[in-house]
Amino acid sequence: MDGPENTHQARLLRLLRDDGERSRAELGDAVGLSRSKAAVEVTRLADRGLIEGGEPAASRGGRRSSIVRLAAGMRFLSIALGATSLEVTLTDGTLRPVARVTEQVDLRRGPAAVLGRAVELTVKVRAEAGGFLCGAGVGIPGPVSYAEGVPVSPPFLPGWDRHPVRDHLTAELDCPVLVDNDVNLMALGEKHAGIAKPFDDFLFVKIGAGIGAGIVVGGTVYRGANGCAGDIGHTAVMSDGPPPLCVCGNTGCLEAHFGGAALARDATAAAAAGRSDILAMRLADAGTLTARDVTDAMAAGDPFATTLVRDGGRRVGQVLASLVSFFNPGMIVIGGGLSGMGHALLAEIRGVVYRSSLPLATGDMPVVLSELGPDAAYLGATRMISDHVLTGHTT
Amino acid sequence: MDGPENTHQARLLRLLRDDGERSRAELGDAVGLSRSKAAVEVTRLADRGLIEGGEPAASRGGRRSSIVRLAAGMRFLSIALGATSLEVTLTDGTLRPVARVTEQVDLRRGPAAVLGRAVELTVKVRAEAGGFLCGAGVGIPGPVSYAEGVPVSPPFLPGWDRHPVRDHLTAELDCPVLVDNDVNLMALGEKHAGIAKPFDDFLFVKIGAGIGAGIVVGGTVYRGANGCAGDIGHTAVMSDGPPPLCVCGNTGCLEAHFGGAALARDATAAAAAGRSDILAMRLADAGTLTARDVTDAMAAGDPFATTLVRDGGRRVGQVLASLVSFFNPGMIVIGGGLSGMGHALLAEIRGVVYRSSLPLATGDMPVVLSELGPDAAYLGATRMISDHVLTGHTT
Repeated sequence: MDGPENTHQARLLRLLRDDGERSRAELGDAVGLSRSKAAVEVTRLADRGLIEGGEPAASRGGRRSSIVRLAAGMRFLSIALGATSLEVTLTDGTLRPVARVTEQVDLRRGPAAVLGRAVELTVKVRAEAGGFLCGAGVGIPGPVSYAEGVPVSPPFLPGWDRHPVRDHLTAELDCPVLVDNDVNLMALGEKHAGIAKPFDDFLFVKIGAGIGAGIVVGGTVYRGANGCAGDIGHTAVMSDGPPPLCVCGNTGCLEAHFGGAALARDATAAAAAGRSDILAMRLADAGTLTARDVTDAMAAGDPFATTLVRDGGRRVGQVLASLVSFFNPGMIVIGGGLSGMGHALLAEIRGVVYRSSLPLATGDMPVVLSELGPDAAYLGATRMISDHVLTGHTT
Repeated sequence: MDGPENTHQARLLRLLRDDGERSRAELGDAVGLSRSKAAVEVTRLADRGLIEGGEPAASRGGRRSSIVRLAAGMRFLSIALGATSLEVTLTDGTLRPVARVTEQVDLRRGPAAVLGRAVELTVKVRAEAGGFLCGAGVGIPGPVSYAEGVPVSPPFLPGWDRHPVRDHLTAELDCPVLVDNDVNLMALGEKHAGIAKPFDDFLFVKIGAGIGAGIVVGGTVYRGANGCAGDIGHTAVMSDGPPPLCVCGNTGCLEAHFGGAALARDATAAAAAGRSDILAMRLADAGTLTARDVTDAMAAGDPFATTLVRDGGRRVGQVLASLVSFFNPGMIVIGGGLSGMGHALLAEIRGVVYRSSLPLATGDMPVVLSELGPDAAYLGATRMISDHVLTGHTT
């Protein structure tokens, strides 16, 4: 689709996306236009197939409708890439999902194979849900140059470095595409559809295989001078013993202590050393351990697993305490796969943050678990691309 | 003075402040107005005494002037409070200083005494330089609620907590007043008149008696949810030995390791223990040591003083390395009294930042010393208040 022809149309389209259908009479008031001017723009948008309803009585010989809404066939696409997963979600114009497919994919297969598969899955969800595709938002685990739409030095994914993901998909999908870091998109999802809605300045912290932060300033994602703001996984934290070596080459990084990869490593070592019966049994059964085994062992009362999670939470808390004093956020939202460890993890993070940050900064600052869970990803991706498409180039 | 009557006038006033005088013919083009519309606004501003020159030929029977400038009598005021100093600077409309007075003041005497003295000094500089006062910007060492114009829980200054500094001075000076944290104002000074001019997103780090940061996002100061963003002095840093107790009640804070107060403490201990002949002699002479003695001892080749500064720089570097990964600034500017320690300090900070932050974030990020020095304070304060006054309430 082509974007709006002017700022009035952009405001009308965004209003219908965010607040849903409106009577023709209300629309002008809601965007600050006279009724006659609003009618002109509504007719133009309807002529271009972007909205439905709102025809003036008898003007088209059809039945009269006073209710205006985004075209039922309007579609936005989210392509969410994880280290081991690919999720493609198609939404309607109001960003409600109408079709979705998820599968395991190893990103190390490289951009050609993975993006090729993403396009195949897009064809599949489009066949399922129909409609016309207005744009796609893509989330990538790692630093992204937002302006260029390319990953930059993503860890473990050398084949993706500076691959033109945006231009590749724009050509394949024949629609506008924007690419961002996955954590930024989850932060955007939390801002517009999640618990952080009332906050203009907040942090979203994703604890999954790795650990990263999305920074929202004044209601929009802050990406930094090179697009890599929020990379907190390689912050040095204090060690009780010798600091563990991190994949980045430094020692003692937060991710070297905690996160899915560190948990799997520590759980395996503990099982081998006989420090946890439950983990030893699971290792014997499965031949390998993951963060999921630690969560289950903790739920079953295993003291070693509980200690691992508490130690990890304490270290995340240390890093966040510094950031609270520096950034003074209105809220911290914790998400990502390991946030499923829930309140044991949260209690530890809160303990350190509230104890170590300055009272003025923590006074009324909530530290909460995400309620959107993984849905934050597609909500952020479709929000990003629909903002872009519906705002368009205005004069 | 009353603010501009419309956005055109606001643009004209800001242009004349930032770019200096202009010919009447150029002015309209520069702010995107037709020549006749610009002439109307110029005449109105001249009638109100805010600008001079630019009278149309013969219209007032005087000599013709085609050059328009801010009124020569326009004055902005900076009141810069330090822990032990008070500096009052009066500038013209283009923020060039026309009168200044500095004196030692102990802020612990409380707001009534200190602000009373600031008003007396204002009377003095106004008598010296004349003109009409358009507004005052006030910098305070400690957290400030910018919206309310009050200090909030300033360390060591209990008498200042929530004192209505803005309203107090607005009444006394009879002009608009804005109050902010001193480090934020120095960051603003660096943005508009210093080395950070080309950067929209950067950090200003003040290393003085304490250590704090000013955060600039998108060209404006980011103050955080409670107005206390940038408080990095109480970030925990790693210790080689037992972490020192901080005045904030925690242990191992950056300020407990480094800054003017920590240096004075460590230098005195070293002198008493016979670890530095130079410091011991100075202690015997003066009875007390300050950071200045450490700087001098380092300049004289004292190895202990050099070690103190290097250790401090390394710890500042540790904190900044985390912030670089988190915030991805375009530049870091180091200022404050201890930045006079110059390149020994800077080299250590750079070493840690470039080694410990992610390469993508540090790739082209300069870490530099402020070139404005203490002038950043009045430049930021008068910028803040003149932005406010010249932008005014536009319709």
